[in-house]
Amino acid sequence: MKSFCAYVPTRILFGSGMVKQLHEQPLPGKKALVVISNGRSTKANGYLATVEAELHAAGVATVLFDRVEANPLKSTVMAGAAAAREAGCDCVVALGGGSVMDAAKVIAFMATNPGDVWDYIAGGTGKAQPRQSAPLPLVCITTTAGTGSEADAYGVISNDETNEKIGFHADFPVLSIVDPTLMLSVPPKFTAYQGFDALFHSTEGYISATANAMSDMYALTAIENVAGYLARTVRDGNDLEAREHVALGNTLSGIVMDVCCLTAEHSLEHAMSAYHHDLPHGAGLIMISKAFYEYFIERHACDERFVRMARAMGMADASRPDDFITMLVRLQEACGVADLKMSDYGIGRDEFDTLAANARETMGGLFMGNPCELDHAGCVEIYEKSYR
Amino acid sequence: MKSFCAYVPTRILFGSGMVKQLHEQPLPGKKALVVISNGRSTKANGYLATVEAELHAAGVATVLFDRVEANPLKSTVMAGAAAAREAGCDCVVALGGGSVMDAAKVIAFMATNPGDVWDYIAGGTGKAQPRQSAPLPLVCITTTAGTGSEADAYGVISNDETNEKIGFHADFPVLSIVDPTLMLSVPPKFTAYQGFDALFHSTEGYISATANAMSDMYALTAIENVAGYLARTVRDGNDLEAREHVALGNTLSGIVMDVCCLTAEHSLEHAMSAYHHDLPHGAGLIMISKAFYEYFIERHACDERFVRMARAMGMADASRPDDFITMLVRLQEACGVADLKMSDYGIGRDEFDTLAANARETMGGLFMGNPCELDHAGCVEIYEKSYR
Repeated sequence: MKSFCAYVPTRILFGSGMVKQLHEQPLPGKKALVVISNGRSTKANGYLATVEAELHAAGVATVLFDRVEANPLKSTVMAGAAAAREAGCDCVVALGGGSVMDAAKVIAFMATNPGDVWDYIAGGTGKAQPRQSAPLPLVCITTTAGTGSEADAYGVISNDETNEKIGFHADFPVLSIVDPTLMLSVPPKFTAYQGFDALFHSTEGYISATANAMSDMYALTAIENVAGYLARTVRDGNDLEAREHVALGNTLSGIVMDVCCLTAEHSLEHAMSAYHHDLPHGAGLIMISKAFYEYFIERHACDERFVRMARAMGMADASRPDDFITMLVRLQEACGVADLKMSDYGIGRDEFDTLAANARETMGGLFMGNPCELDHAGCVEIYEKSYR
Repeated sequence: MKSFCAYVPTRILFGSGMVKQLHEQPLPGKKALVVISNGRSTKANGYLATVEAELHAAGVATVLFDRVEANPLKSTVMAGAAAAREAGCDCVVALGGGSVMDAAKVIAFMATNPGDVWDYIAGGTGKAQPRQSAPLPLVCITTTAGTGSEADAYGVISNDETNEKIGFHADFPVLSIVDPTLMLSVPPKFTAYQGFDALFHSTEGYISATANAMSDMYALTAIENVAGYLARTVRDGNDLEAREHVALGNTLSGIVMDVCCLTAEHSLEHAMSAYHHDLPHGAGLIMISKAFYEYFIERHACDERFVRMARAMGMADASRPDDFITMLVRLQEACGVADLKMSDYGIGRDEFDTLAANARETMGGLFMGNPCELDHAGCVEIYEKSYR
């Protein structure tokens, strides 16, 4: 049996309505930088007021930072860290989706460490310096089911000067609240994009060369929950039972990343959205997913694992690796995302060489997780096959 | 979907040979009280020398406390806490089975808190006072697969003045190493007793009124691993592959206790071994297990859950709750523990009223986990049916 290290120190409160228990929890500070997106929804739907009231009821003062964009930029997290320092915050509370939680993790880190975030990032042009101080403690309240950021130590940040988008190992949240009622307002398209991001964390983890008995348990349970309920959440955003299952699958998928290493599917996508900021991460993953998994199926890299995933996705009598592709395409069709086009986001065929090189340079670590070798030509081939 | 709180902050290193990586881990102190049992095996088989060498290689000085008995006593943990204080230890390292890890947890707690351990215990005659200081940080290196103590915050301690045996909520280990090679020397009888303890943590958790999607995942995976491999480890203690599966199942069963509440099977047994110190906890659980689960099956408390557990234990076509009993008895027979007798440990029929009262007084909290009501007469009935 393969060895593993399981370390998920976050206290995870899961369940519909749990945000109302925030004020009863052990909270890590007295003055919180509350980090939300730069859109209107977190204020308009009342989530911000709810969370502020909970924090105030617990005696925690709040300072708002409402500037996080999708695919958050280095300049944004540096501004957030400065805001935390200037206001004398001793903790950070993220209220939002993956972009907000990722940005908040890096804000919490840079609030207590000098210099630039790229001084500390490993990968690409990052200088990989060790941290000088522990980050501010972080509480995550997730409003989407996609990145699993509430259960891992990573924040994905984009550097628009260098076209790099890199997952930075900051620190785990001390507390995360996963309340599916906060996800009811996510529009169908983004519900689907985010749900596939969650699914791929587990399908990548399950075929990974680093998969182990612990990560397999999380991944298969996550795949069952996401694949079994995602189409329902896309069809009816108010289907709370379905939202709960997808939210659970998403959090478990986040834990998969703590217990094993994903594969280059994520590297290949981050390169795409590093150059095309308007491309949602989940949409990019969906575009390349069929070709990505077919690459490994054609090479018989881990036949049994694809069969097992097809069963977890609902094909009880799956027997061939290809059955996974059948179930993947079927789910994409059921979620209305089977026809996404790179060209709709301005991606051209002439970029594939650049993207493949960027994927390896910025997030090359994930290539170790591939179940068999995937070289530069293979990456280009996956982009080519995926192009529409 | 039921809400839950998942909190397991322990860094768990799992795998054969992992004890040799101890010196590379982030260690929580510079002078460790190394806690082992009062027997000879930990020294004779070289485990102590290995762990001391690993700690010294990491620059951690060691002080030995080699006095922990099975079903550890209050007086022992008080002596251990005094030893830690006198030597100026800043951390505790437990090397042993459940008794050693449990004692070490409470030693680490009492090393930094004044008074008597019963001042802090909730239940029985304990005074349930809040702790005054954080315990010393604890590292657990487990040499058995039974209690799951490496993955929870509880230490079970016996008070021989009051005939109480109570699980005390101390704190989680900061680091646990689960290395199945350290379990190869456990004799067949104790391998079986401990393995059933692990199994029951998960079967109790799975039928518990507090079971949830997260605890179910851990419990079913644990049941598959323990039930699937325990008989092999009993037949051949050197079967490392089987030891690995049982060890994994045991650690997952420990996590089950973090994510939901067990049932009164554990309360009923702790009462037995509180009055009869020679009775191994796992043996006591085995004696009452058939009658305990039959009690709930007869009352149709959670029929589907028993069917699902029978499947996890290997009966693929299980369809009736009774199938669980069939698989339970079959496993006990395969492990050579189907004929354990209370009378062999000096337990008399006349004690059942006392034991049933003690179970509720000392560990009454677990009764909330029962899938339907289990009153005093029901407890006596379970003891009666189990008596041989």
